[in-house]
Amino acid sequence: MATIKPFLLVLLFSIFSRISSSKTHHPLDPLTREELSLVQLIVKKSYPPRSSPVFHYVALDEPEKHDVLSWLAKPEPEPLPRRAQAILRVHKQTHELVVDLKARKVVSKHVHRGPGFPSLTLEEQTAANDLPLTYGPFLRSAAKRGIDVSQVVCSVFTVGWFAEEKQFIGKRVVKIQCFSKKDTVSVYLLPVEGLTIVVDLDEMRIVEYKDREVAPMPRAEGTEYRLSKLPLPHGPRINDTYHRTFFHACRWMNWEFHVSFDARPGLVISMARIYDPDQKAFRSVMYRGHISELFVPYQDPTEDYYYKTFFDSGEFGFGVSAVSLVPNGDCPSHAVYMDAFYAGPDGTPVHVPNVFCIFERHAGEVMWRHTELAIPHVTIAESRPEVSLVVRMIVTVGNYDHVIDWEFKPSGSIKTQVGLTGILEVKAANYTHADQAAASEEAHGTYLAEHTIGLYHDHFLTYYLDIDVDGATNSFVKKNLVPRRNTNTGHHRTPRKSYWTVVTETARTESEAKIRLGVGPTELVIENPNKKTKPGNPHGYRLIPGPVIHPLLAPDDGPQIRGSFTNYNIWVTPYNKTERYAGGKYVDQSQGEDGLAVWTRRNRKIENEDIVMWHVIGFHHVPCQEDFPMMPTLSGGFELRPTNFFERSAVLKAVPPPPMKADGCGVVEP
Amino acid sequence: MATIKPFLLVLLFSIFSRISSSKTHHPLDPLTREELSLVQLIVKKSYPPRSSPVFHYVALDEPEKHDVLSWLAKPEPEPLPRRAQAILRVHKQTHELVVDLKARKVVSKHVHRGPGFPSLTLEEQTAANDLPLTYGPFLRSAAKRGIDVSQVVCSVFTVGWFAEEKQFIGKRVVKIQCFSKKDTVSVYLLPVEGLTIVVDLDEMRIVEYKDREVAPMPRAEGTEYRLSKLPLPHGPRINDTYHRTFFHACRWMNWEFHVSFDARPGLVISMARIYDPDQKAFRSVMYRGHISELFVPYQDPTEDYYYKTFFDSGEFGFGVSAVSLVPNGDCPSHAVYMDAFYAGPDGTPVHVPNVFCIFERHAGEVMWRHTELAIPHVTIAESRPEVSLVVRMIVTVGNYDHVIDWEFKPSGSIKTQVGLTGILEVKAANYTHADQAAASEEAHGTYLAEHTIGLYHDHFLTYYLDIDVDGATNSFVKKNLVPRRNTNTGHHRTPRKSYWTVVTETARTESEAKIRLGVGPTELVIENPNKKTKPGNPHGYRLIPGPVIHPLLAPDDGPQIRGSFTNYNIWVTPYNKTERYAGGKYVDQSQGEDGLAVWTRRNRKIENEDIVMWHVIGFHHVPCQEDFPMMPTLSGGFELRPTNFFERSAVLKAVPPPPMKADGCGVVEP
Repeated sequence: MATIKPFLLVLLFSIFSRISSSKTHHPLDPLTREELSLVQLIVKKSYPPRSSPVFHYVALDEPEKHDVLSWLAKPEPEPLPRRAQAILRVHKQTHELVVDLKARKVVSKHVHRGPGFPSLTLEEQTAANDLPLTYGPFLRSAAKRGIDVSQVVCSVFTVGWFAEEKQFIGKRVVKIQCFSKKDTVSVYLLPVEGLTIVVDLDEMRIVEYKDREVAPMPRAEGTEYRLSKLPLPHGPRINDTYHRTFFHACRWMNWEFHVSFDARPGLVISMARIYDPDQKAFRSVMYRGHISELFVPYQDPTEDYYYKTFFDSGEFGFGVSAVSLVPNGDCPSHAVYMDAFYAGPDGTPVHVPNVFCIFERHAGEVMWRHTELAIPHVTIAESRPEVSLVVRMIVTVGNYDHVIDWEFKPSGSIKTQVGLTGILEVKAANYTHADQAAASEEAHGTYLAEHTIGLYHDHFLTYYLDIDVDGATNSFVKKNLVPRRNTNTGHHRTPRKSYWTVVTETARTESEAKIRLGVGPTELVIENPNKKTKPGNPHGYRLIPGPVIHPLLAPDDGPQIRGSFTNYNIWVTPYNKTERYAGGKYVDQSQGEDGLAVWTRRNRKIENEDIVMWHVIGFHHVPCQEDFPMMPTLSGGFELRPTNFFERSAVLKAVPPPPMKADGCGVVEP
Repeated sequence: MATIKPFLLVLLFSIFSRISSSKTHHPLDPLTREELSLVQLIVKKSYPPRSSPVFHYVALDEPEKHDVLSWLAKPEPEPLPRRAQAILRVHKQTHELVVDLKARKVVSKHVHRGPGFPSLTLEEQTAANDLPLTYGPFLRSAAKRGIDVSQVVCSVFTVGWFAEEKQFIGKRVVKIQCFSKKDTVSVYLLPVEGLTIVVDLDEMRIVEYKDREVAPMPRAEGTEYRLSKLPLPHGPRINDTYHRTFFHACRWMNWEFHVSFDARPGLVISMARIYDPDQKAFRSVMYRGHISELFVPYQDPTEDYYYKTFFDSGEFGFGVSAVSLVPNGDCPSHAVYMDAFYAGPDGTPVHVPNVFCIFERHAGEVMWRHTELAIPHVTIAESRPEVSLVVRMIVTVGNYDHVIDWEFKPSGSIKTQVGLTGILEVKAANYTHADQAAASEEAHGTYLAEHTIGLYHDHFLTYYLDIDVDGATNSFVKKNLVPRRNTNTGHHRTPRKSYWTVVTETARTESEAKIRLGVGPTELVIENPNKKTKPGNPHGYRLIPGPVIHPLLAPDDGPQIRGSFTNYNIWVTPYNKTERYAGGKYVDQSQGEDGLAVWTRRNRKIENEDIVMWHVIGFHHVPCQEDFPMMPTLSGGFELRPTNFFERSAVLKAVPPPPMKADGCGVVEP
């Protein structure tokens, strides 16, 4: 073995608080622990003592956009009035409340009618999961299978919506699937098959139970993933502290933005603005960005799996499902962390430590460079290393983990990335060889290990992007690349036969902005038609799309009716504070009555208006053995890139890092 | 301003030499400086004293694949016989020679007939560039425009092929475009318009000259990019040694591969193999990978620009155009560098220091992770940070710089990335506002600055990927995702109406492997049908494609006939040592008579054969003001991902880095 040569790299990291005193709220700061407790107190007081409202969602009721922008333009010692919104279940009804925190009172109360339920609380999921373990018929089913009930864990799965299942309509039901934890912690890989268990969450009891068939049990062997339990030899070894910030307003290099937490979407980026040295001012880019929904339909139509068509954000809550990040594993050693609070089912604040991390990325990329050899007696080799700031959240709903990144580049680009990792959803099957599974029409997945099928499925992520290029009033412009025949007249008298040109088309209404990507080459730009560069180009930000996916489910299938926001990869809507979630507000057992596809039927005007872009990206997933027992991260994302937003490159004058000595280490002060 | 908190990050980096003694050649090592000198001597001796052959290309004549593989399976002190191939111009003819280095003689000599010329030498480009500066008519043109000839630099542009231009057929001609360097080093941004200058390279004289019209000159203002010359204030500041390796065989974590230099493609990755702890052996993944061609057609059909349809690799040589990397700018501070040699026009070795860099990437990504909350009394949060090894080359042909990366991941993935940066190709125009350019059919680009149009163009990159999954004999398999209607019979009696499944199709011949991406969802896998996992899945590597691009030029247009390898995004051919360059061997003024589109017409058998995959990725480029005067890098690439190649995740047992103390620094020994 050759010698090892270690070097030290200095990483400089800084987060600035824009609003210096933590006593004054940024208008978009999430509710604090104290504010959540106050909401709990006010809400509980508004109900009779024994009505026990269950808190499903509590969040800042954001001030109107124009109020936020005016306050921030001239921040005052007095913060904007703080209000909270709360969604509760009370006596089998869904209540929507708005609470004024200063006046300490409920200012509005509304009962939600129609289909769709709020996202599940973790506590009711835990209670439902425990029900089978003391339920006589389940104990008999376990005995029949030779399974020790003390070695069983169960997990809640939302039931989706199928018009034919009339018995579920109006009831908050879930299905329960149980797994063996005997000799494994990868419980998702050892499902107990052949059972149907339906629980009514409002009554918290099993309302349907069927033991249909006994299937073979996959083996626990090879499913361990904790390093401490894995047999030696280990390896390869990965070469590579821990600080915390409480400020939600960040300023980094030429960027400033606000990072907030919301129990529904989790990570929310607001008020992203970039400094323009020509204008000597910060200019607005994005008022708000978050993941609006994650639709994961499995592709097995049989009894045990047909209903598995999850909407992870709307049904489980991306914020509630965000995990505490593992320092040095989930984020590099120089990351800083942020905590969050959300309302538990009785309204008590729940603390999630390290829910976000923020770090500078030095990935060894090149920001820009050029070597010039054409000029005699002059040698030029100018190069600037890339650096960016990443804000990260990781969401784990059951078996899967999604790594959600927002990345800010000094050039003006905002890049997103989603990384898929965690454990596959598998089913047990009688096969002993891949050829049997391939020959069957019943496999619906890849044969991965003994008796184990990794199920086919999709991940559709829908991003909400309230881009405000230099102010709210923007247009959505398609720059179509169109092939042309050279007419060979006038100046064109050349032997060239063809070329392409750009034909610009501004979308006037929502219909004109529905785009299925992959049809033709088009640049998609959010432009401010009222602000132009000196040469006369409208200020814009361009979308370089993420991994393209189109739905393969039939349009009349329940899951696809609910997931109809995946029918297009791009949608543009006029800004409306109530339209934030592509699958609608109440997603559990929704029937497609709310959401993007419904709103846009009104075909509203979107030209020179305050507009929001929605972008659907995703992955079809055909599992393979490498995904077992733990999937190496698969990533994809999109870029929002300034396009005639600046007069010239924003990083032309970027200062390269100071030279360093070999084997040395040092500290750089700006 | 808040305080700055600097941390130190330890980066461990190591390159191992697989063949310990540098005296024994790896069979794929590039020709050394001494070997190149020997080739020069032998070749010159084989010609009469005054015939002055010009060396256009000298490279290792690689041994046959099976000889390489058998030697490496059992390396002997005696290396494989070293032979060189050389392409020369002698008396206006193209000669192809093979030289035996041990026997010190030319073992074959062949004269190339038909269209197509070898790539240009840098020296003849320089000589041609100087011709206008002493050419009477050009001096008069300059005077007419008020341009000081001492402030002019000229640059060679290949002429492409258009059947109508019969006067060029059989002649090694180029066009010359001149630029002003007055008050700028971004010469490409100040073209002298309206001139046609044609140079015969073999005669080294101007054979055609036209002064057609006088156009306005773009301004030098705002085109400076050297930090030392840019006015204060500078910023933002970028936070961030220099070692060299002479071993071409690298071993890193669970990977080993060979890095070589070739004057035509530049960076060549060979013999990529990954260690399998189950098989306790290195297993083959890729025999050879390189960029086969880069096609950049500009989209202006008018006199000055119609012919600009460059094939940067075939016409200029990616290796010859590879630049010396800038430490700390082009590569991070912990990178190691590698030098290269190529044959100059008289055969003398030319030294390129720092032509490649190799570095570990710690980008803050997550290799895999999972938080488990479903098991009572057990808390699990396992996470492994991603680390990878990057091999980089940067190629600068005139104005554009392409950053070429090959990245190796411990999970078994090989990722590629190409980054586009450098200076736009612009033309001068009479416009003073973007609206005028938009209204004109003659602009063919974006109005970027006074009198300056950034021309529309494309970048098509074609990768040569000789994947050998567990040996050479492989098949190309399309796993089509096909929507199905739920028939509601048997086990399917559920309310689910639809799902998708996988229909597998093995390509039998070259025609069946030509794929235009974007039509339907398909997983593309190179499989070894003779090697299966324990569950019975054929060993495979899957392609996750790069940015999809389709040609927009007409199929009967000269440039597209030459660039017909872009008609599909995927091609698969049987391995043939002579088929390495998608655009053919002799690309300058080629007529489409050689290359992928021609070879595959034979529709050869590719099932269970030694096969090569070709992947075309690319970017349509509509310039914007941010690309001026220096374009921030725009990146894209593809991933080759193991798919049932391993029995399970290859990184399950990866060891996380040791914990570090805050504000500390340290050195880690494995």
